[in-house]
Amino acid sequence: MGLSTRHLLGIKDLNRNDIELIFNTADTFKDVINRPIKKVPSLRDVTIANIFFENSTRTRLSFELAERRLSADTLNFAASSSSVSKGETLIDTVNNILAMKVDMVVMRHPYAGAGVFLSKHVKAQIVNAGDGAHEHPTQALLDAFSIREKLGDVEGKKIVIVGDILHSRVALSNILCLKQLGAEVMVCGPTTLIPKYIGSLGVKVEHDLRKALNWCDVANMLRIQLERQDIKYFPSLREYTMLYGLDKQILDSLDKEILVMHPGPINRGVEITSDVADSKQSLILDQVENGVAVRMAVLYLLAGQSGA
Amino acid sequence: MGLSTRHLLGIKDLNRNDIELIFNTADTFKDVINRPIKKVPSLRDVTIANIFFENSTRTRLSFELAERRLSADTLNFAASSSSVSKGETLIDTVNNILAMKVDMVVMRHPYAGAGVFLSKHVKAQIVNAGDGAHEHPTQALLDAFSIREKLGDVEGKKIVIVGDILHSRVALSNILCLKQLGAEVMVCGPTTLIPKYIGSLGVKVEHDLRKALNWCDVANMLRIQLERQDIKYFPSLREYTMLYGLDKQILDSLDKEILVMHPGPINRGVEITSDVADSKQSLILDQVENGVAVRMAVLYLLAGQSGA
Amino acid sequence: MGLSTRHLLGIKDLNRNDIELIFNTADTFKDVINRPIKKVPSLRDVTIANIFFENSTRTRLSFELAERRLSADTLNFAASSSSVSKGETLIDTVNNILAMKVDMVVMRHPYAGAGVFLSKHVKAQIVNAGDGAHEHPTQALLDAFSIREKLGDVEGKKIVIVGDILHSRVALSNILCLKQLGAEVMVCGPTTLIPKYIGSLGVKVEHDLRKALNWCDVANMLRIQLERQDIKYFPSLREYTMLYGLDKQILDSLDKEILVMHPGPINRGVEITSDVADSKQSLILDQVENGVAVRMAVLYLLAGQSGA
Repeated sequence: MGLSTRHLLGIKDLNRNDIELIFNTADTFKDVINRPIKKVPSLRDVTIANIFFENSTRTRLSFELAERRLSADTLNFAASSSSVSKGETLIDTVNNILAMKVDMVVMRHPYAGAGVFLSKHVKAQIVNAGDGAHEHPTQALLDAFSIREKLGDVEGKKIVIVGDILHSRVALSNILCLKQLGAEVMVCGPTTLIPKYIGSLGVKVEHDLRKALNWCDVANMLRIQLERQDIKYFPSLREYTMLYGLDKQILDSLDKEILVMHPGPINRGVEITSDVADSKQSLILDQVENGVAVRMAVLYLLAGQSGA
Repeated sequence: MGLSTRHLLGIKDLNRNDIELIFNTADTFKDVINRPIKKVPSLRDVTIANIFFENSTRTRLSFELAERRLSADTLNFAASSSSVSKGETLIDTVNNILAMKVDMVVMRHPYAGAGVFLSKHVKAQIVNAGDGAHEHPTQALLDAFSIREKLGDVEGKKIVIVGDILHSRVALSNILCLKQLGAEVMVCGPTTLIPKYIGSLGVKVEHDLRKALNWCDVANMLRIQLERQDIKYFPSLREYTMLYGLDKQILDSLDKEILVMHPGPINRGVEITSDVADSKQSLILDQVENGVAVRMAVLYLLAGQSGA
Repeated sequence: MGLSTRHLLGIKDLNRNDIELIFNTADTFKDVINRPIKKVPSLRDVTIANIFFENSTRTRLSFELAERRLSADTLNFAASSSSVSKGETLIDTVNNILAMKVDMVVMRHPYAGAGVFLSKHVKAQIVNAGDGAHEHPTQALLDAFSIREKLGDVEGKKIVIVGDILHSRVALSNILCLKQLGAEVMVCGPTTLIPKYIGSLGVKVEHDLRKALNWCDVANMLRIQLERQDIKYFPSLREYTMLYGLDKQILDSLDKEILVMHPGPINRGVEITSDVADSKQSLILDQVENGVAVRMAVLYLLAGQSGA
């Protein structure tokens, strides 16, 4: 009746039952955090270390709040103020934290595969909060949860992911999660930002934003992360915005009313304009709110698998 | 019977009843934090985000401690490790935090009016912990509370604020608070550091420190904040200390025994000498202690207005 | 029946009864943190400020976890985000924190004697978490506790401390603690890194690593801290590793099976190789685990002396 995994390293560890279990559990926790009394004592004797080797306000706060709502004890560890700069290895850093009887590690790391590597060498349960350009599973879960909440189901729905698919852990985790749940998925962006292996994931590719939007029920507009891109291949920011930025005029000219998502933080006027971000069609703040409930569900269910 | 406001953006939002209600509530909380058991469960289901876009050890710790004593859940957010550097707007940053079901935001921001702006765009209650050169209301409340504690009342007392009045949020909030409570207020400093509109606030101006001190019951010696000042107009630090620094010799030569305050952190040997800071006439540590009680009172009373 | 001191500034403040009381108390807390319910309510009404003027992930986390396990309220204060950069003195910084009714201060500071100095000027109880090249008493206590745990007793055991004795607070505190408990202590390293006063501490000196290892029951391999060393006198890193690095080949060629300790963070391949660090003879992770129990014992026992 529990999850099929001890860790959450990526969406690819989860089968469809796992995802549905997480969503049903998140439904319950969403009720909890909307009550005046927002806490449950579920993880009162669980200690969770949040180890962030990259900055992330939104993800770290969301996990920390999920942990507090579950009454867990939390330890925060930011790489900049850490022994890492003293030349210690990742395994030593984490093993030392674990020797202090930490039960679970929520980790963000700039290198793809850091979570997988760690899970093979330490005893604690690992939750991947983003590893390089690889996976960001809780983001994908909260995105799919938000679609399910608005549209009743994810199965059979058409979702387009717009932007830099090549360098995005959000895109990869979203594709895996949505496909697992039976959605049709399309990616849209300039050819230079679409990976060559994309066909093998069973997704459509479209380079024309308007065509993509007319096809879909939901558009997930990724954040342009200039720091991750190879300047030689990239269209200029202005070109990108002209070709792939979503404004109210395009949105209102479509054949149907679509939903708009964004994983944040938004570059207003780049990927989407303010009137789109703040429109009734936007799920952006729902995504943030659901993030806490979904992360509570993940932590709660993993704690049930601690001895597995 | 509660406060007349949902937010604490500045002293100018508070009427005299509000201030007296805060002080009476702070009296109770001061008893609480001097008991062996320093906590009350009052805000057990309230989540407060401390969002500091400027460094501030003392104010942040004081608020955090006030929140803990009230059993609130706290989230800390420092701008340096935040999405702000990724180009996100203030409203997006705060809205995202609020979507996580945060009830109250304690914010420090380098721009005057940031709290007012925010309160018009988000649903949470805002407590201004300092906005540029504008207001720092809880500092003014704890200063007035400390005077009331020592002298029995603020009404009719003579307070001089010495230093850089032009760039000081502490000065402006203090003037508004003390006037509201019926004190006589004087400002003292070089003409370059006294704003031209000062007369409209109903305060006296004096450029001679000794005359100001002989007039007052209490001298509030502001901190010289070199980083805020226009070097062209400012007397040199050495000149400032010669003309406006308070040492034991001046203090002992006055007609009466006055009280000395300082909002901290002290530049010993600049605004005041060590023997003054550590003398029996100094209220400096009382101010810090009262800060926790006054902030507990503000948070507690605002929580009672959450639905207002 | 309590400790003979209100502060823990250095091992030299502790008599043998004190150390044994700490160890017996730590035994109890080690049982606690290995239970499913890892917390005790002992310090529920004690507020502890962790004031770190130097970075230290491992020591700070260990203290913070010890405080949480004891149900204390904790405040974290890192010098980099502090008023210290605004020119405030150490005493003012700490006094301000104390005026907020903090009961205990755990402090790391780059200058030797900072804790002693502070304890003479403020009312709170001070725990030294490392002061320059002077003392690091809780590290020495957890090291001796780990030896006692493995070998049954410290008295009569032979311990060699290998590395940069001259600049190491860990070395000095270890020597004082082990001698107090009746162990035989040797130091081993290049002459340039052995202080001239070492004889007065009643320890042996050996410059040949193999001879030292053949003599001892336990080898404590200090971390090479390049940042603390005078480059002119130091053997090069490569020379150091050749002469004083411990690898599996040396370890297996000794007359007896010795235990290996390291205060961390490890420079794998410098002081010790990975196969030594991860071998059954290594106490490294025991040290980390025992650190939390020993620090719980120190904080708990000091709290009992608060009025002394």
